[in-house]
Amino acid sequence: MSLREQIAQLATFNDDSAAGGITREVYTPTYARALEWVAERMREAGLDTRLDAFGNLWGRWTGRDAGAPRVLTGSHVDTTLNAGRYDGVVGVLGAIDAVRRLRADGFEPHRGIEVLAFAGEEPRFGTGCIGSRALVGQLGPDDLRRMCDRNGVSLAEALDAAGFPPDRVPEAAIDPAQVHAFVELHIEQGAVLERGGEQVGVVTAIAAPHDLRLTVRGEAAHSGATPMALRADALAGAAELMLVLERLARESPSGTTVGTVGVIRALPGAINVVPGEVQLDVDIRDSDLAARETVVAELLRAAEAIADARGLSVDVEPIVVDTPVACAPAVIEAATAACQELGLTHRAMTSGAYHDAMIMAAKVPVGMIFVPSRGGVSHHPDEYTAPEQVDDGARVLAGALRRLASA
Amino acid sequence: MSLREQIAQLATFNDDSAAGGITREVYTPTYARALEWVAERMREAGLDTRLDAFGNLWGRWTGRDAGAPRVLTGSHVDTTLNAGRYDGVVGVLGAIDAVRRLRADGFEPHRGIEVLAFAGEEPRFGTGCIGSRALVGQLGPDDLRRMCDRNGVSLAEALDAAGFPPDRVPEAAIDPAQVHAFVELHIEQGAVLERGGEQVGVVTAIAAPHDLRLTVRGEAAHSGATPMALRADALAGAAELMLVLERLARESPSGTTVGTVGVIRALPGAINVVPGEVQLDVDIRDSDLAARETVVAELLRAAEAIADARGLSVDVEPIVVDTPVACAPAVIEAATAACQELGLTHRAMTSGAYHDAMIMAAKVPVGMIFVPSRGGVSHHPDEYTAPEQVDDGARVLAGALRRLASA
Repeated sequence: MSLREQIAQLATFNDDSAAGGITREVYTPTYARALEWVAERMREAGLDTRLDAFGNLWGRWTGRDAGAPRVLTGSHVDTTLNAGRYDGVVGVLGAIDAVRRLRADGFEPHRGIEVLAFAGEEPRFGTGCIGSRALVGQLGPDDLRRMCDRNGVSLAEALDAAGFPPDRVPEAAIDPAQVHAFVELHIEQGAVLERGGEQVGVVTAIAAPHDLRLTVRGEAAHSGATPMALRADALAGAAELMLVLERLARESPSGTTVGTVGVIRALPGAINVVPGEVQLDVDIRDSDLAARETVVAELLRAAEAIADARGLSVDVEPIVVDTPVACAPAVIEAATAACQELGLTHRAMTSGAYHDAMIMAAKVPVGMIFVPSRGGVSHHPDEYTAPEQVDDGARVLAGALRRLASA
Repeated sequence: MSLREQIAQLATFNDDSAAGGITREVYTPTYARALEWVAERMREAGLDTRLDAFGNLWGRWTGRDAGAPRVLTGSHVDTTLNAGRYDGVVGVLGAIDAVRRLRADGFEPHRGIEVLAFAGEEPRFGTGCIGSRALVGQLGPDDLRRMCDRNGVSLAEALDAAGFPPDRVPEAAIDPAQVHAFVELHIEQGAVLERGGEQVGVVTAIAAPHDLRLTVRGEAAHSGATPMALRADALAGAAELMLVLERLARESPSGTTVGTVGVIRALPGAINVVPGEVQLDVDIRDSDLAARETVVAELLRAAEAIADARGLSVDVEPIVVDTPVACAPAVIEAATAACQELGLTHRAMTSGAYHDAMIMAAKVPVGMIFVPSRGGVSHHPDEYTAPEQVDDGARVLAGALRRLASA
């Protein structure tokens, strides 16, 4: 089965095919079935599979030196709601394909190679990359109880229901001394490669998010009987705040800051009631940490001023604050050399999206390989990377793994 | 059982008591049980009860002249989500109490008096006052199929499930020639009486809504990988539009226009995706029709300009367009005389909220009696009218009914 056919087949594990895209959230029964299907592909490629205590799927190719620090590669197969079929998937199925290519070439790794499908890169529970966070020891028992999905199910409850007792999560932690490097193949999710015309991106830095929830509170009131002058309209205040965020990101001196409100909830949510409470889930990112934090600080200052002027209050709750990451020179060099060997045009670039590689970087050297995304579209049914582009990525990954796993 | 105790008991019919307020939407099993409890109260007061083809509850007191046009009174016992316990309820239980008072005084009506609990004053299906709309023949088969609740259940489906075949809805229409007047007791849902210090409001005009749904469409995109300059963010455009609405309503020359966005939905609704589509349910009201329509027209013009500037599109879908109403002099006079007889301070005023009386006015003479709302709060668990204020309302209603039903 070609990589293209595998991607098509994995896309059939879908909880909302009527919507046109893919919905396969971590720890759902559909996700578990998809993961078992991926494990079967790993075993076909000669990998020894196991699920760790957090539900990350591992496929091991033992090296000649069984004690040497190993090379890890992989990505994720969970999705956001009504998403595309390439995000994450290309990095998991592409890694299995890279292993198959290396075996076919008769390569015998000095260091072991392990292919990973991380659990929960997408933020079902508000925070993304929970699988890699578990590996680097960033998830404590409080986090598991605190983090909830949109239906109020906590991560601890979801883990338990999926057969992973929450109290065993610490067993998933890796020993960084046993890891030589982590390299992740991924679609770009932006349009930089497409516009530049390069076939492959070699990532040198990964932008990181500062995510927070702002809760704006005013006074719910009857929309007909409450004159404009007597209102404390939480949604009007939130609207003002959203435009401030947009302006701050646009005007940020780094030129690379982005600010987004992806989730808004207005309560009580009836056409004849002035909203008394609005929640905004805000995502601010940059590879320039100082520029990002300046935008966050100015946004919170503006929120206070807007609240004061309108008779509202604003609560701020952190969701996630991650640190931008510089990729490891050894991985950058291995990926670049692989591109050159294959005669593929390539570009050194920053990743605007974050990935499990960003989290892994807290403990081990990381790098990433990008393939183009048509129109930069991602997290959407129209997400698309051509089969030959996906194959290019798998070939570059194979070349990089060969270099990283030798000697 | 006192009127106060009845209000408390009716509040126990509640689909979401955990939220702190009352949720009792029309055509739900909880609503049906509440309505049967109300029918029992009607029968205790000597009224003959029946449900019409739309689920409106009627309680009849036959007059000495059985053929004379009747006096109707009543309101509704459905609620919005997490609402208070007085909105609508005061006008139904207060009307039954008024009948009891008149009977206790030995009054024998010349005209029949009928107490009504209208089905669906609150906009479960997007449009409010569906019970009274059915009575005046404003709901056609297309409306029943088109109007849906937030779960996509059509009014036709909800009617059918509640035991009211949709094809029989036309049988609910009243013969206007058989109706002398309709008078509705209601809480003010604003703070005019409280600030003025009057005990009762006699309504002279009812403001009417122009409700519409705006759908703003842009492009869903990855929040990290999509630079600010490349976005078509539907939610940022919607935020700009919400602030324009607020400004237009504030600056409207009538001084009485109000504009509200009570419902907002951003899709796909993930923290790491720039929203590609946003729906806004907009409510614009005034007792001054020309001023209201000017605000609507300017809002739609601004929507086009914002869409053009941001690379978005905006679709406009009407929800409801009602006409402001002048109350009938006979009802205003009867209510005013009742206040004077009882020694209650009163104020002639406009209703900012709309009510079933506004819909009934299309076919029959109407009027309304208001009692104060503490802090003007309504559609909220904190909604409150003191027991003696509710009693005042029932006494004034009794006096008005006595006048309207005599000779």
